[in-house]
Amino acid sequence: MLPILSAQETEKIKRRLMERANTDYSQQQKIVDEILQDIRENGNRALFSYIRKFDGFDVNEKNLLVTEAELEEAFRMVEPELLAIMREAAVNIEEFHKRQRRENWFIEQDGKYIGQLYIPVEYAGVYVPGGKAAYPSSVLMNIIPAKCAGVKNIFVATPAQGGKIDPVTVAAAKIAGAHRIYKMGGAQAIAAFAYGTESIPCMDKITGPGNIYVALAKKSVYGQAGIDMIAGPSEVLILADETANERFIAADFLSQAEHDELAACVLVTVSEQKAHEVRTEILRQAETLPKKEIVMKSLENYGTIIVADTIEQAVEAANHIAPEHLEICTGDPQALLPKIQNAGSIFLGEFAPEPLGDYFAGTNHVLPTNGTARFSSPLNVDDFQKKSSVIYYSREEFEKVYRKVQTFAKAEGLEAHARSAAIRFED
Amino acid sequence: MLPILSAQETEKIKRRLMERANTDYSQQQKIVDEILQDIRENGNRALFSYIRKFDGFDVNEKNLLVTEAELEEAFRMVEPELLAIMREAAVNIEEFHKRQRRENWFIEQDGKYIGQLYIPVEYAGVYVPGGKAAYPSSVLMNIIPAKCAGVKNIFVATPAQGGKIDPVTVAAAKIAGAHRIYKMGGAQAIAAFAYGTESIPCMDKITGPGNIYVALAKKSVYGQAGIDMIAGPSEVLILADETANERFIAADFLSQAEHDELAACVLVTVSEQKAHEVRTEILRQAETLPKKEIVMKSLENYGTIIVADTIEQAVEAANHIAPEHLEICTGDPQALLPKIQNAGSIFLGEFAPEPLGDYFAGTNHVLPTNGTARFSSPLNVDDFQKKSSVIYYSREEFEKVYRKVQTFAKAEGLEAHARSAAIRFED
Repeated sequence: MLPILSAQETEKIKRRLMERANTDYSQQQKIVDEILQDIRENGNRALFSYIRKFDGFDVNEKNLLVTEAELEEAFRMVEPELLAIMREAAVNIEEFHKRQRRENWFIEQDGKYIGQLYIPVEYAGVYVPGGKAAYPSSVLMNIIPAKCAGVKNIFVATPAQGGKIDPVTVAAAKIAGAHRIYKMGGAQAIAAFAYGTESIPCMDKITGPGNIYVALAKKSVYGQAGIDMIAGPSEVLILADETANERFIAADFLSQAEHDELAACVLVTVSEQKAHEVRTEILRQAETLPKKEIVMKSLENYGTIIVADTIEQAVEAANHIAPEHLEICTGDPQALLPKIQNAGSIFLGEFAPEPLGDYFAGTNHVLPTNGTARFSSPLNVDDFQKKSSVIYYSREEFEKVYRKVQTFAKAEGLEAHARSAAIRFED
Repeated sequence: MLPILSAQETEKIKRRLMERANTDYSQQQKIVDEILQDIRENGNRALFSYIRKFDGFDVNEKNLLVTEAELEEAFRMVEPELLAIMREAAVNIEEFHKRQRRENWFIEQDGKYIGQLYIPVEYAGVYVPGGKAAYPSSVLMNIIPAKCAGVKNIFVATPAQGGKIDPVTVAAAKIAGAHRIYKMGGAQAIAAFAYGTESIPCMDKITGPGNIYVALAKKSVYGQAGIDMIAGPSEVLILADETANERFIAADFLSQAEHDELAACVLVTVSEQKAHEVRTEILRQAETLPKKEIVMKSLENYGTIIVADTIEQAVEAANHIAPEHLEICTGDPQALLPKIQNAGSIFLGEFAPEPLGDYFAGTNHVLPTNGTARFSSPLNVDDFQKKSSVIYYSREEFEKVYRKVQTFAKAEGLEAHARSAAIRFED
């Protein structure tokens, strides 16, 4: 457990982490395909029958939606302290995501302009899993970017066992700015969002985490609606030098490991002594964790310590692995920032542990996992809007260039394109 | 052919257009899967054997890359007039896409900050199809956004029959700013880009159009690398009132129809008289087109004219269809712009026909097709970079809020998360 390896092993470690995503889900895919087709063809009738079957809830067109009374009841049931913290976190998240907005712009010259518009999607559907543990932080993280993008219809879907909603989930959704909450879950909820039913409009974008059925359904409906990334097993990489505090690092390591047996924790350090100290601390602290069993499996399978010769080599290893979370615990963490090429979220110094970003600081905790930080981004406002290009040319301006358009089109063998340019100046 | 329908039929028309994308490619997928696995496992050896088989080109590690001498030769072979036009178009495209760049930003307060970095991908692979027709405009449109994003390694793959490159393609790639050009095509090129071989580094992002094998390969490697959208059959929707010029509209209609039998052209007008005039013009102009056969099939299958009662209804129909290209040919096109919800690229007025955007104005012609403009965007600089979040808190700042993080984590049942916050203040 927790082998201490050299930086030469980085590629092997990376491959091992990426293998976490290789599972054959063809059995589950078949079930999902049936549900999707059924709801696409039969709308509410099919949706309601799945809800009755899976959630034991005698649903109809009226009780499908969470009511104002249920909402008020939910707020009464949640601890006031937790409500206050969720509200404060929501403010921080909103402040960060507002900064991601962009203004329409135009490049204007004489009688012509080209430009770009940013238009929010009309309908965003946010999925919130049910089950034993509720993750209200994830509700905030999915809804607030949509709200900041200017989406007018943010609709939540969450399963309600026996028709009973989870009060914390519902309160978080309302705090974040959801406009409606549907009591539905699983692949059937994704199908209803993608295709619409008599009671539910088609969503343009569907986001949010879920079990494998939800993930497969999202993948399948892509094209019919936009989706966020499909979250894979998550990971943290901690970059540390000899100045780092081994107790803090060990605690952060373990906070990642408790998520999931597939969660991966990697320490990259330039100090062999620190490597050993952290290792000892991890094993010591793990002893008293309630989720010790999950933690130990994660550590056994994917917990890794790399000792690099130089800090440059350590950074290279981090960039190669492209972690979801990157903690930089070195004497001067800011100095390394310009060298970071691939990381979802970067935590600088000893007082910015991953949970600060998970819950409170304002950045998004929906992050690219499993090496996809090489090319993808945290969930953000851009995910809930699209760009449109605009072109305007006056007659005079187009007259100056239409022959070039014509020549280019002919060079590509597209005569009708050439004529479309030329016909404007034929009489 | 070219039925004149009411706006009530819009949903039916939309469904018909969307059905264009429903083809069963499971046979081709099997072939692609084999190629991908082979190259993943056997690298160059597999890649070279496919190149020999499909392109009849006796490839090796040295002649896989287009040389400087071949490049110079290519530039000599292309018409100087076309070269000049491509260079001018490239300048326009660059000017537009430079404006899409964003600066890193931070929200700083007391001893803490959060922020967002924009980091270009390290390796972008651009696919350029071979075959009879070369589309140098598409080469410009794919490479220049990567260049503007700051990508340091823009590598092109294009098949070379018998080892011979297409001079126009190669010249366009060089003008646009490609750093290397590999003589490889098909699913095998996508596999080499995604997994890397002894001669080719792993790409982080792969873009560019291609045949069905290329498209399926891109879909399959997604996750291993990022990809652009999978382009579906394309379409234009022209919004016209009684002031529009029926000859111009007809020509634009036909320029779309010549692309492909699956291309769709829709006219939405508030004038029944204009509908008939345009219809007559389309049929008249189609007679003399070299691609008449393709054009007539596209018109027969998907050519549609909608007569709306009001301009509002017409706009609603356009938004519902969410076309790739939207031409607004009304008395005051700018006035309608704020009402447009879904469109890839918007052409205003009678002197901004679609080919102006395809070739010259500077906006991108790689656009969301087949209704996906509801949630996706033209190819742009964001496609070649990713965002990373940054969080820094001083000890004092984290001390003020760590109990909130702790409480939130405990509410989600994540004890190790809570401890990661608390351990910082335990002594």
